Amino acid sequence: MASSLLTRQLAISLQQNLCLAAPGCRYVSRTATKTVSEFEYDAPSMKTAVPGPKSQELMRQLGEIQNVGAVHFFCNYEESRGNYLVDVDGNRMLDVYTQISSIPIGEVTVSFSKSFLCESLFSQSAFVNRPALGILPPENFPDKLFESLLSIAPSGMSRVQTMACGSCSNENAFKSMFIWYRNKERGYASPSEQEVGTCMINQSPGCPDLSILSFMGAFHGRTMGCLAATHSKAIHKLDIPSFDWPIAPFPKLQYPLEEFVRENAQEEARCLEEVEDLIVKWRQKGRPVAGIVIEPIQAEGGDNHASPDFFSKLRNIARKHGCAFHVDEVQTGGGTTGKFWAHENWGLDDPADVVSFSKKLLTGGYYHRDELQPDKPYRIFNTWMGDPSKNLFLSEVLNVIRRENLLEEVTRSGKALLQGLYALQTQYPHILSRARGQGTFCAIDACNDATRDSIMLKARNKGLFMGSCGEKTIRFRPALVFKEYHVHQLLNILNNILAEHK
Amino acid sequence: MASSLLTRQLAISLQQNLCLAAPGCRYVSRTATKTVSEFEYDAPSMKTAVPGPKSQELMRQLGEIQNVGAVHFFCNYEESRGNYLVDVDGNRMLDVYTQISSIPIGEVTVSFSKSFLCESLFSQSAFVNRPALGILPPENFPDKLFESLLSIAPSGMSRVQTMACGSCSNENAFKSMFIWYRNKERGYASPSEQEVGTCMINQSPGCPDLSILSFMGAFHGRTMGCLAATHSKAIHKLDIPSFDWPIAPFPKLQYPLEEFVRENAQEEARCLEEVEDLIVKWRQKGRPVAGIVIEPIQAEGGDNHASPDFFSKLRNIARKHGCAFHVDEVQTGGGTTGKFWAHENWGLDDPADVVSFSKKLLTGGYYHRDELQPDKPYRIFNTWMGDPSKNLFLSEVLNVIRRENLLEEVTRSGKALLQGLYALQTQYPHILSRARGQGTFCAIDACNDATRDSIMLKARNKGLFMGSCGEKTIRFRPALVFKEYHVHQLLNILNNILAEHK
Repeated sequence: MASSLLTRQLAISLQQNLCLAAPGCRYVSRTATKTVSEFEYDAPSMKTAVPGPKSQELMRQLGEIQNVGAVHFFCNYEESRGNYLVDVDGNRMLDVYTQISSIPIGEVTVSFSKSFLCESLFSQSAFVNRPALGILPPENFPDKLFESLLSIAPSGMSRVQTMACGSCSNENAFKSMFIWYRNKERGYASPSEQEVGTCMINQSPGCPDLSILSFMGAFHGRTMGCLAATHSKAIHKLDIPSFDWPIAPFPKLQYPLEEFVRENAQEEARCLEEVEDLIVKWRQKGRPVAGIVIEPIQAEGGDNHASPDFFSKLRNIARKHGCAFHVDEVQTGGGTTGKFWAHENWGLDDPADVVSFSKKLLTGGYYHRDELQPDKPYRIFNTWMGDPSKNLFLSEVLNVIRRENLLEEVTRSGKALLQGLYALQTQYPHILSRARGQGTFCAIDACNDATRDSIMLKARNKGLFMGSCGEKTIRFRPALVFKEYHVHQLLNILNNILAEHK
Repeated sequence: MASSLLTRQLAISLQQNLCLAAPGCRYVSRTATKTVSEFEYDAPSMKTAVPGPKSQELMRQLGEIQNVGAVHFFCNYEESRGNYLVDVDGNRMLDVYTQISSIPIGEVTVSFSKSFLCESLFSQSAFVNRPALGILPPENFPDKLFESLLSIAPSGMSRVQTMACGSCSNENAFKSMFIWYRNKERGYASPSEQEVGTCMINQSPGCPDLSILSFMGAFHGRTMGCLAATHSKAIHKLDIPSFDWPIAPFPKLQYPLEEFVRENAQEEARCLEEVEDLIVKWRQKGRPVAGIVIEPIQAEGGDNHASPDFFSKLRNIARKHGCAFHVDEVQTGGGTTGKFWAHENWGLDDPADVVSFSKKLLTGGYYHRDELQPDKPYRIFNTWMGDPSKNLFLSEVLNVIRRENLLEEVTRSGKALLQGLYALQTQYPHILSRARGQGTFCAIDACNDATRDSIMLKARNKGLFMGSCGEKTIRFRPALVFKEYHVHQLLNILNNILAEHK
């Protein structure tokens, strides 16, 4: 029921926008009647082990031209709907991994795509005539930015720059921080001839020995700049040259957080002290810290949380030492923590300097304060600078999130999910521990990686598709349309597996 | 005429594919009748100076949230067609810059977008349900890769990896070369515990001191890895930390090439000698060269050419010293040089190891030999790994290129363009020099940057939109549908401006 309501809302949202965007549009009425019948499935349905024979054959084909070691299975996206992912062998799974946490409102039906895309998006040529946004933006570009990204800007963020993906977003955020830092150092004067000359050959002072402070367990992307701030798994970093940048410990907290307040506060204090030591040490080394980058919840690194107090003190340390403060919301942003931005839970008086995003925001990019805008054009630049078709799609998705109050839904489902995980770890203490989460952005640890992997495979064959992170963690990353009904489905499947596992 | 033919070809191509992709499709006949009337404009038409008042107002709006110093004007992409870009003030310009060389077959009409996108592309959900291609590819992903990217693979290239943009493509190509190089060094054994441990904290041997050899004047992108191989303009590099990697001189040739064969051969020999010296020197320094990266024509750096003999000898040097050889075709690829890949003009016996692309290929990515494939999954990886909707669009574009024999068109137009530029520099030797080009990938130098910029602004106000590169170069980057008729239009406008400039 809830999902058919959602679909009707989509249709209404689209109708209203289409009438503005494309007067005289032809498809709306057909779409509106169609969507009502196209509601979500009510349960998983499995026909083969996963990957099934069709997936395996496709893996063989793709394996001729790419490494397919990471491919789980092939999908039939036309048949996938809402919270259910359908594979090419006809298996229908409850999806709580959502394309590595990148699908905002669930798998969208064909009628949504047709009505939205054919009329609103593509009558505007945004897809086929992809502009170089930095030099030749389309007429509706400012409007669409205000309507989409600016309408959800975190506190203190007055400016936004779109990019193609999360890594590009963080790379360019780092560049903005370096540029800002050096401009401060040279008193906003023009660069010297020596700087201009040396930068062309990668040498200091033109290419200065500045650094970004990051945390053990962090994941900020895989291009060489963000990779130097990533420390979650060796497979990401092995054999790739890197920068000598400082790496602070991220607090290793005990869960549930409310039961270990004192111990956790001590651990956080230890880490903050180390941050200050590193900043001083790297300045003395001649590699000053231009910026500090941190995730509100370390995701890839194992769903590691810290308290609002920790982040708030970290922000103060950044301010005290003249470093920019960059909050990486690539995985946490977009509503799954119950707030649109996870760092809104901290209640900072002094907002961040940069907030980067991608995944569920459909386009990459970063918000920043006025001061972080480079002084000249072409310093932060590339050919496409994002993709306006993604901004248009984001506008539609935000309309749905607002009208459906999906953040409230997330808070409700998240509570049910976390309570359920607590119950499971109480029931199976030899297998599960450390249930934790904010909104539906939840996780639980298995006793070791082999057990974790075994649970995940069994769950998949029973129609529950989950992701892993860290060493032995299962991460839950459902879409915003994940309801209490789905929580119970998930918990039932897990419980059955764990009961057999005993 | 030619353009209406083209548009009809598009419709036929689409009909045939749509019948495969979406049986029972409804829009084809309407599209087919519509496209015939929607042909290209026949000439520029100017109503205001550029940027006009509407563009200026939009710049003010966008300026509130972004640096707009690089924005030339705002575009009306719905009204833009083929070789003509229409701005929001109703100015229609002959476009030989094509979104920084990234539009393959010209601005595409609304009917093309509707028929192709609504039926073929979006009935397949490729846009709204964007998959994480590395783990959950859609059913048609291998087929579409074979049909699109593999069907145009350069000689020797058996594998392809898609990425979101040019910088990501080069970053990941570099990473592949580093991984390949270290695997060779350790005799394909597993990494040591020390390597696994040190890579997590950015230290050697896990993050080894390897380097990429690049050339002065090169442009390979702006994320921190490719930026370390970019040396075209200070504005790209100033204030960004970099790597100590070797930079060789790129030959400074005299044009026309066929008149300076001996002098140019000497210059190329000098540069090649320097390449070998640098490889030895960097090995001695403890930063061995894992790969050599080069553009077939240095584009951003000023349209600098070198001979097939130079590239062939460079490839041999890479082979001799055990370095991978990476040809960056981000700007040169896609047909504008008269071959689909510019480096096909070299006739290499021993193909490149990596060929990267983006821009006119609509998706980023890189081809590589079998040996360059990482040994394990997740080493070359990110959330999206490209965008399958772009692969589908590329398939359609390739059909058009083949059926319309657009590479022959490019060769014809390119000859006319280069002859015209020779004539202009003969007529205005005090203003223009060094006309050069391959296919329509042409350029000419002005006597200084101020004159170049003044000519470009005047041309724009007369309806000719061009790009610049290097210090004082005008670059011509028309789409593949640029015909001799358009060449004459371009030359007439330029001639009028130069005549006034005398």
